[in-house]
Amino acid sequence: MNFEGTEEVAEQKVRVAFLQVGESRIELLEPTSPDSPVAKFLEKNGEGIHHVAYEVEDLEAALADLQAKDVRLIDQTPRKGAHGASIAFVHPKASGGVLTELCQSNEH
Amino acid sequence: MNFEGTEEVAEQKVRVAFLQVGESRIELLEPTSPDSPVAKFLEKNGEGIHHVAYEVEDLEAALADLQAKDVRLIDQTPRKGAHGASIAFVHPKASGGVLTELCQSNEH
Repeated sequence: MNFEGTEEVAEQKVRVAFLQVGESRIELLEPTSPDSPVAKFLEKNGEGIHHVAYEVEDLEAALADLQAKDVRLIDQTPRKGAHGASIAFVHPKASGGVLTELCQSNEH
Repeated sequence: MNFEGTEEVAEQKVRVAFLQVGESRIELLEPTSPDSPVAKFLEKNGEGIHHVAYEVEDLEAALADLQAKDVRLIDQTPRKGAHGASIAFVHPKASGGVLTELCQSNEH
């Protein structure tokens, strides 16, 4: 497990620490404001797993595909995540209670 | 995401479906008995994320290291998991509410 540094993501009101594990990454999330979605999660659930993210090649195509399959989404269109990536959340009711993020890296 | 098949793990009383994602793997768990730990989890929490597992080179050494650091463990010694692996669980109170498994593959 390799520590890759931290970043503040203003749009999500979180500070994130990145730990690389193989081709995956563990992100530790700390709210930077009481109205951060992560602050609300901590208040409701305590510490734990917040979400799972999958990298996709083309986020807009992935969202269109899920919409065509009537999968309930939180984000109909991409927004900005850490590392300048485009992200969107699938609704946990559509994925067995697991908050699921799709993520398109814009680094390559 | 690549479907790798299913396996029944008698010791944990679960049926597991394996989905490969890069160097990681998503496991879908279904209890095979009402007294399975996974049946109890579902009853208490509903569907969701059960645990996160990390592969280690030497499970006994990893457990000795955690014991030396007074990290609370569920399993003091390895037991048998899917794919013939040796596994041990760290107590979720020691890892921010996240049930954490260490896993040593015996395939190589």
